[in-house]
Amino acid sequence: MPAISGNEYIERINQLKTTIWYNGEPLTGEISEHAAFKGAIKSQAALYDLQHDPELIDVMTYTSPKTGNKIGISYQQPKTQDDLIKRSQMIQKWAKTNHGMLGRSPDYMNSILMALSASASLLEGKENCFPENLINFYELAREKDLSFTHTFINPQVNRSPFYLEETDEPIAAKIIDEIDDGLVIKGARLLATQGGMTDEILVISPGGINDPDYAFAFSIPSDTNGLKFICRESFALGDREFNHPLSSRFEEMDAIVVFDKVVVPWDRVFFYKNIQVANSFLSQSAFRPFALHQVINRQIVKLEFIASVTEEIVQSIDISGYGHVHEKMAEIIIAIETMKALLLQAETKAAVDEFGLMRPDLTSLQVASCTFPKIYPRLIEIIQLLGASGMVTIPTESDFESSIRKDLDQYLQSAKHPAKDRVELFRRAWDLTMSPFATRQTQYERFFFGNPSTIASDLYQNYTFN
Amino acid sequence: MPAISGNEYIERINQLKTTIWYNGEPLTGEISEHAAFKGAIKSQAALYDLQHDPELIDVMTYTSPKTGNKIGISYQQPKTQDDLIKRSQMIQKWAKTNHGMLGRSPDYMNSILMALSASASLLEGKENCFPENLINFYELAREKDLSFTHTFINPQVNRSPFYLEETDEPIAAKIIDEIDDGLVIKGARLLATQGGMTDEILVISPGGINDPDYAFAFSIPSDTNGLKFICRESFALGDREFNHPLSSRFEEMDAIVVFDKVVVPWDRVFFYKNIQVANSFLSQSAFRPFALHQVINRQIVKLEFIASVTEEIVQSIDISGYGHVHEKMAEIIIAIETMKALLLQAETKAAVDEFGLMRPDLTSLQVASCTFPKIYPRLIEIIQLLGASGMVTIPTESDFESSIRKDLDQYLQSAKHPAKDRVELFRRAWDLTMSPFATRQTQYERFFFGNPSTIASDLYQNYTFN
Amino acid sequence: MPAISGNEYIERINQLKTTIWYNGEPLTGEISEHAAFKGAIKSQAALYDLQHDPELIDVMTYTSPKTGNKIGISYQQPKTQDDLIKRSQMIQKWAKTNHGMLGRSPDYMNSILMALSASASLLEGKENCFPENLINFYELAREKDLSFTHTFINPQVNRSPFYLEETDEPIAAKIIDEIDDGLVIKGARLLATQGGMTDEILVISPGGINDPDYAFAFSIPSDTNGLKFICRESFALGDREFNHPLSSRFEEMDAIVVFDKVVVPWDRVFFYKNIQVANSFLSQSAFRPFALHQVINRQIVKLEFIASVTEEIVQSIDISGYGHVHEKMAEIIIAIETMKALLLQAETKAAVDEFGLMRPDLTSLQVASCTFPKIYPRLIEIIQLLGASGMVTIPTESDFESSIRKDLDQYLQSAKHPAKDRVELFRRAWDLTMSPFATRQTQYERFFFGNPSTIASDLYQNYTFN
Amino acid sequence: MPAISGNEYIERINQLKTTIWYNGEPLTGEISEHAAFKGAIKSQAALYDLQHDPELIDVMTYTSPKTGNKIGISYQQPKTQDDLIKRSQMIQKWAKTNHGMLGRSPDYMNSILMALSASASLLEGKENCFPENLINFYELAREKDLSFTHTFINPQVNRSPFYLEETDEPIAAKIIDEIDDGLVIKGARLLATQGGMTDEILVISPGGINDPDYAFAFSIPSDTNGLKFICRESFALGDREFNHPLSSRFEEMDAIVVFDKVVVPWDRVFFYKNIQVANSFLSQSAFRPFALHQVINRQIVKLEFIASVTEEIVQSIDISGYGHVHEKMAEIIIAIETMKALLLQAETKAAVDEFGLMRPDLTSLQVASCTFPKIYPRLIEIIQLLGASGMVTIPTESDFESSIRKDLDQYLQSAKHPAKDRVELFRRAWDLTMSPFATRQTQYERFFFGNPSTIASDLYQNYTFN
Repeated sequence: MPAISGNEYIERINQLKTTIWYNGEPLTGEISEHAAFKGAIKSQAALYDLQHDPELIDVMTYTSPKTGNKIGISYQQPKTQDDLIKRSQMIQKWAKTNHGMLGRSPDYMNSILMALSASASLLEGKENCFPENLINFYELAREKDLSFTHTFINPQVNRSPFYLEETDEPIAAKIIDEIDDGLVIKGARLLATQGGMTDEILVISPGGINDPDYAFAFSIPSDTNGLKFICRESFALGDREFNHPLSSRFEEMDAIVVFDKVVVPWDRVFFYKNIQVANSFLSQSAFRPFALHQVINRQIVKLEFIASVTEEIVQSIDISGYGHVHEKMAEIIIAIETMKALLLQAETKAAVDEFGLMRPDLTSLQVASCTFPKIYPRLIEIIQLLGASGMVTIPTESDFESSIRKDLDQYLQSAKHPAKDRVELFRRAWDLTMSPFATRQTQYERFFFGNPSTIASDLYQNYTFN
Repeated sequence: MPAISGNEYIERINQLKTTIWYNGEPLTGEISEHAAFKGAIKSQAALYDLQHDPELIDVMTYTSPKTGNKIGISYQQPKTQDDLIKRSQMIQKWAKTNHGMLGRSPDYMNSILMALSASASLLEGKENCFPENLINFYELAREKDLSFTHTFINPQVNRSPFYLEETDEPIAAKIIDEIDDGLVIKGARLLATQGGMTDEILVISPGGINDPDYAFAFSIPSDTNGLKFICRESFALGDREFNHPLSSRFEEMDAIVVFDKVVVPWDRVFFYKNIQVANSFLSQSAFRPFALHQVINRQIVKLEFIASVTEEIVQSIDISGYGHVHEKMAEIIIAIETMKALLLQAETKAAVDEFGLMRPDLTSLQVASCTFPKIYPRLIEIIQLLGASGMVTIPTESDFESSIRKDLDQYLQSAKHPAKDRVELFRRAWDLTMSPFATRQTQYERFFFGNPSTIASDLYQNYTFN
Repeated sequence: MPAISGNEYIERINQLKTTIWYNGEPLTGEISEHAAFKGAIKSQAALYDLQHDPELIDVMTYTSPKTGNKIGISYQQPKTQDDLIKRSQMIQKWAKTNHGMLGRSPDYMNSILMALSASASLLEGKENCFPENLINFYELAREKDLSFTHTFINPQVNRSPFYLEETDEPIAAKIIDEIDDGLVIKGARLLATQGGMTDEILVISPGGINDPDYAFAFSIPSDTNGLKFICRESFALGDREFNHPLSSRFEEMDAIVVFDKVVVPWDRVFFYKNIQVANSFLSQSAFRPFALHQVINRQIVKLEFIASVTEEIVQSIDISGYGHVHEKMAEIIIAIETMKALLLQAETKAAVDEFGLMRPDLTSLQVASCTFPKIYPRLIEIIQLLGASGMVTIPTESDFESSIRKDLDQYLQSAKHPAKDRVELFRRAWDLTMSPFATRQTQYERFFFGNPSTIASDLYQNYTFN
Repeated sequence: MPAISGNEYIERINQLKTTIWYNGEPLTGEISEHAAFKGAIKSQAALYDLQHDPELIDVMTYTSPKTGNKIGISYQQPKTQDDLIKRSQMIQKWAKTNHGMLGRSPDYMNSILMALSASASLLEGKENCFPENLINFYELAREKDLSFTHTFINPQVNRSPFYLEETDEPIAAKIIDEIDDGLVIKGARLLATQGGMTDEILVISPGGINDPDYAFAFSIPSDTNGLKFICRESFALGDREFNHPLSSRFEEMDAIVVFDKVVVPWDRVFFYKNIQVANSFLSQSAFRPFALHQVINRQIVKLEFIASVTEEIVQSIDISGYGHVHEKMAEIIIAIETMKALLLQAETKAAVDEFGLMRPDLTSLQVASCTFPKIYPRLIEIIQLLGASGMVTIPTESDFESSIRKDLDQYLQSAKHPAKDRVELFRRAWDLTMSPFATRQTQYERFFFGNPSTIASDLYQNYTFN
């Protein structure tokens, strides 16, 4: 089966009987029509459709080594620098359709699954490890173009450094039994972005495991029995694109994932109850360089979008004559060029790793991943500072459709724009920086790579000084 | 007539036939029941009710020198340091009921009107100036406990330093005629916070006037013929207090104010077509020290609320053992104590001014007003940093009322709180830092005193070095 | 004996046979004539002389409750708010003579000794504690106007959190014996500012003591047998005031203090080998509020000096028309006014403590002590930024005395100054910000109150939220 | 004549009769033996010697297209990407010998002269322009391996934006006459780094010229009649390398340059009295990309030195276990990798320009040049923060040669170093961050590329948004 189309994606998701709770009610009906999901599903479908654009066929897909089908490049194991550059082009192509706002577009998880399965040899001959399950599952996912959510963290019950969970009923998801059909999991995990709108959920222990019951890695279909996704409030405030140009299209849901005695079939278990493997697999595998590579590519596209919105505001209200505006615009340019240069360095210094993958330079990517969470909130702030009162002078499209329009046309025009265009611009800026969608994006980017101190420590402790 | 009650306020506002446009439609029906206004109106009414609390009568009111009625202290001309301290107590008392979130609670405009009228002597004997109108109107407002919105800035059409408006039809509001009944005004002004939910609108030119047609100061009822308030989208996302504890109660609207050949009666004109007065009245009057004095008091209450929410998060998820948490909490404490110390200094160094007012020390207040716009966004960021994933793990009250509650109870409990209390806390933190209401608050505080460079220049240029 | 004069101070120091090593040689001859010490000694003598200025007698001294002599106010136990304000006035008066550059002017240690002896009741009835020694010694010091250096920290051998010293020979000073004559101390301590140029050295354990051999507090004369002061390189680069206007006068030495089997007489021991007392005495005593109170007063004077130098540069090269200059000057003003306001708050909220002292509010002082180490380096940087190339265009006084002067007069004049005055100004700015004296001042202020994280933790952990 | 050796450089400089004033006296005797110059001259000579190292001949030199001699690569006009990379290697090789501390090592001016002469066609056919003089002079300099100082800025008399010099006697250097022998120049310019220790001085107007008398570009020998170099105080505090490991070797002098009716021979004039050319030549020529390319290469070497010193301190006192140390070390790594990535991007995106030069990408270099002045002072601060009290505990080599050594050996040892090594390390850190040499380096790097706002404006105004 070749790379899927948008419709195939939507149909497959609609057919699943996934248990999703939203605002006190279980979802019924097609998820692709639900207000909290339809924007992101439609945008995601558009990504899949690009795989079938005749002009982009070689940008978006490659030939399956197994079936000869044209399949998505994010599933490809890159062997050459050229493969790596193609991978970047594909990622950026997708990201441009959503301005880098879909943090969990399918290429992210596809890249991770590719990297993990390429590293399956790390599981060879280890207790309770099933490298062949991992490889088989990767091939299945690749050929079927499966989509994924995942969860890496435990509930935020207690963040004390000395906390060990000791409750009768599990809170963090754990193995409570092993039966003929598979592992039995009970408890919860956070936060599944796109939870409910993907084929599968991939679950991996991130390290720091002391108790074998918390050591596992597997993937199961979203509608597995006992699996529940509990959504937060949606940040899609409406579906008119003029009013909410970003959130109406790119709001990905975040869900708490509850495992209510979920049975994970044995052929979907990659490892379990092996503390040593649970604590080392992610860091020893090709996971980090390839996950970071996808993310940095997406973030560059996002920065370019931020730059274009900001420059448009500067031109619109004609503030390009101020020194402080130059300094703020220079900050944005510095951000973009720094991220691009680090990506270039990562690819220029790429080398074939122990798994035969052309692996981008991890240090360069780590530096980028330490840089972005600091600059993103600052760039968001710059837009607010330059937009000033314009950021709250935001009537709606309905106002422009009413008799009050002639007042708006007169009083909200700008130096370069008629009123409606100008309000459209400032609403875009608002949805990028001040809407609940926007603030969630900021929070998301800030913590994407984990705790800032931890990623700084990682960088330092793995760095070789000249 | 003594200080009004909440009901009197609501009735008076409801009776006005103010023209308000919201989302493409003119408001009909009672404004106090309209989703976009009802929260703030109810919270404002609660302020007025405090004036009738028997235990607070001496905190909230003083005896009118004219009528002997008990009237609001914010209207009082302070003559002694004790008056000043009582003024602070009153302001903080009101602010505490809304955590300092009502930026335009009535004491703000009351203080301004008091200060302006006390400075009326500046208008004596000047062309087109009517100091007695100002004094009479202050007394009217004081005795009737009138509420106000106001506008100080022109539309953001073009912010170029070289821009001069040259259009056939006015954009910024200007005098287009003088008739027997008064001045005729056409054009628009930004941004009337609480626009539509007050008795009156006060309009004053802020300086920088080159053309006499833009030089004026007056006050007119909100329902004056030809006056229109065009609202932005509301940031009250719902009216359940659990879900949106702040925005459901404290969302003040911001409106564009359109003057469509509005006639300002002569007895409501304070001055007009006097460029020299227009450019100097605000800065030479007692306006700044008393406006700042009200604001700093409110902001201190807001900081204390921020501190309490943050400390509650720290305790809830038990992160008080981390050094970086201490440093962030110390930042908050430093912010509070610095603002309090500056207010104390302003009051300790207060002196009787040329108008006979006990005027707080302007430098201390200016320093506070340079400090707050920098620290407020940082404290908001600190809450986001400490709240981390908890800031987006926010199911709704409906979830807690459904059968999914038992999962929430188990998986969203925190070290110190059962799940519902913990979600209530994090929703409060979200509404304080990440909701559209929150981001508008940040934008509002950032620009409250005007452009940061301008307020820094003001401070420097008026400072005497030892 | 009343408060001493400058000459009395110099004579007393010269008569001591203190062992001081400088640049590979022991000092011989009078210390007051030694290039590394003479500037600071002369400046310190000037402080003592102020005590005899007839016009300042009531500002600088009070009447000894024991002898009726006029003695230094820094030794006074303040009982009233007025005492506290007088104390501040005295401290600022002294500090102004050296622009706050003498970090260890005698009032610092006098205040500490006053506070410790007032807290002597904490030692009552505890093992190996001698409160009467402390009180007697305080009275002796007060009546003789003794001067002090002190040391609070151990050598920086190993700063690992897990380090415990385990060497055959002591590194950090410790008790190695108790004999009839007193305690025997061996080892070293850091960093004695003014080490060698004071009558006495006060040594107190700062807390964190695990081994009773490190638990002690005492004072001994600087020339005690076995006591050695090993100096760093001097930062007084020359003695011409034009060339080095600050360092030629205010360079205080820092010395490593070596105890080579030093015998501390029993009557000079305040406590020893009592771990509980060693770890709690400083924090439970009145030490912190009074030490901080002296320091904040001095730092305010220093900030005012920084402000005056900066403003003089701005005027000299006529840059007061730039917005970025206003913003930087505003930063300086904010720094001064914030520190003053916090001091005012500390004094306004002062209350009588358990020892009968009128104790300034500790929180306000702690906030100031968290603030200053951040703003001081920034203000230093501002001077460098505004001074720009002028900071390195610094010929010497000899140049102005040579035939090249006419070129300097023409080419180094500024908008407001003839060349020599302008170079004098920029040399002052250089000596304040870029000389070795200047960088040591920055380092000193940065760490004055200890590690920034620690003082932030202290602030948070002792704060009561509303 | 091939690339010169160190001795040839020294002999040539010593033979010049350059007029240099230092501390009120004209230099007599050999400049290479003068305390204020000998360190830098020796270090510079070492650079020239590298050109004769048989193993480095191909790294340091190329074959003159004119004479077939081996001449310095910094004079080469790069035509290919390989040329560019060789240029970088040569620059870094030189810089490593002085840790990037020689800001004006010969490659800097050589690169500039190369770039200017390659751009000579811009002067073709323009009034008072002599492109052939520029080309001839470049070839002369290249073949003789001449060394240069230069001056780009006018005296800091008045920095007001509205200042125009109007004095009887010139202050800023200007043309006062044209005679048969050449232009006559009177006035001064700032700041000639290495002024007096080079063969020639290159003088170019930087733009912003309104008066043709200030429009000129030329080069003359340092000992031209009427030319005077007036030095600032030297920052070489001594010549023992242990005590002052950097300043004793790398202190470059800064001098005021006085033109006392200096005659510039016509064949050394590149252009004069052409305002349009004076204002555009530097920016239109290849000057900026090649000057920046040299600087960024040098700064990367400097960052690596900073990193190595900091890491050595961390290891020495064993503080690598602290989170805040990791964060600070990560900042350093981020700085290095960001600068390297930007250089890589500049070279990867290099393209042949209108003059046939392989020109590195200017935007990437501009971004680096906006970044470095911000990070350099911060990294210097990090060393001070980590070094803490160790930064002032710095006895001298003489102390280690005296009998006090045994105390130092015991009390100043560190976790990883014997005392003398540890003091050597901290003295190095002091000379890098806190000596007058260090603070001048910081000031120099901060302003190297000019005013930070200006370089930000340049970046923004020339950037093309996607």
